Order: sequence, then C-alpha cells, then structure tokens
Amino acid sequence: MPTISKQDKLITLINVFTVQPDQQQKVVDLLLEATEKTMKHLPGFISASIHKSVDGVRVVNYAQWRSREDFEAMRNKPEAQQHMKPLMEITTFDFHLYEVIDTVEV
Amino acid sequence: MPTISKQDKLITLINVFTVQPDQQQKVVDLLLEATEKTMKHLPGFISASIHKSVDGVRVVNYAQWRSREDFEAMRNKPEAQQHMKPLMEITTFDFHLYEVIDTVEV
Repeated sequence: MPTISKQDKLITLINVFTVQPDQQQKVVDLLLEATEKTMKHLPGFISASIHKSVDGVRVVNYAQWRSREDFEAMRNKPEAQQHMKPLMEITTFDFHLYEVIDTVEV
Repeated sequence: MPTISKQDKLITLINVFTVQPDQQQKVVDLLLEATEKTMKHLPGFISASIHKSVDGVRVVNYAQWRSREDFEAMRNKPEAQQHMKPLMEITTFDFHLYEVIDTVEV
C-alpha cells in the first residue's frame, strides 16, 4: 500500500480532474490504463492512487515519484502524452507537484 | 504513516486550498494547528497529511475519516468551524469526499 511520509522525500503529484458525473468512471478507467500500461514502467514511478469523489464531479490522481526530474521526464514522453489526449477531451484538470510537510495520526 | 488502500473503506477528504505564495506557510500552520488541537481528538479521525505545492500556490489537506457521518459530525462542531474562519480569510478552497478506487505500485 502507498504510504504518506515526509521522511521519504518523494515528490507527490496531485491531479484534480473536474468531470461530468456520467464521465467519472471513464476518467478513472483511462487513468488506470495509463498507469498500468505506461507510468508504472517508467523510471522513478513509485505509486498512483485513483480516487472518485462521492458527489461525482471530481477524480483525483495522488501519485508519488522519486524526484521532480523523473516526473518531468515522464511528461516529455510521447506515450505519456498519448494517454492524456482522451482525458483532455472530457475533463479539465489542475495538477501541481507537492512535498509532504507533515502527517498527523491518532 | 498514513496508508492509502481501497480495502480500508475509509472516506478521504481532499481539500485543495488556493493560496498566495507568501501565505502558503501560514495556511500550513493553521491546518496543522486545527488538526493537532481539534480534529485528531474527534471520533472517526484517522489521519491528516498536509502538502505544500512546489510552485507556492496550493496547499492540500489529504485526510482520512472512518466514515462520512464522522466527517459531517466534525463539520457541525463550533470548534471546527472556528478553525476554518482564519483560513477562509486568506484562501479559497475546493473540498470533496472521495473513495479510493485503486492503487498501483511498482
């Protein structure tokens, strides 16, 4: 299971997709396909966790990469861009790279 | 460390705060204070992980609750609302509740 930790010094991609409820499952399927076929085989990929909002209007990909350089190298690959094309036709998205600052648990 | 798993059947709150870069650390501090002082003591709280975007314009709280009911009960508590007030003065935010659909790891 992916773990969240500030000690790991990973870079986290959080990509928030805004979707029509009737397209939410399609966006999930496209992201899982992109991850299984391409992302997980690229250098520096650690994990991807796909989330569906209960209200139907968002999908979030919470993904961990070893470094920013690995993430940028992925973005420049034609096969990664190919996976994004059908997503861009049915969603808008807001992605940023993050550091984990702290985690609090009971 | 918080773990991400579809088996756990937790509810995940992903709250994306849009911030001015010079307020980013302040937002992180307010969220950590709210979590330590109030959230972690409420029934059903599992974890909160605070993330800062590298570009300075986002803060994300990735939090896990036992159930949607526990999350809603928290939102109705005056002390939780009290913590949100200063955040609302310096940020806008977009929060939704999510289910984990799948995780992929190398």
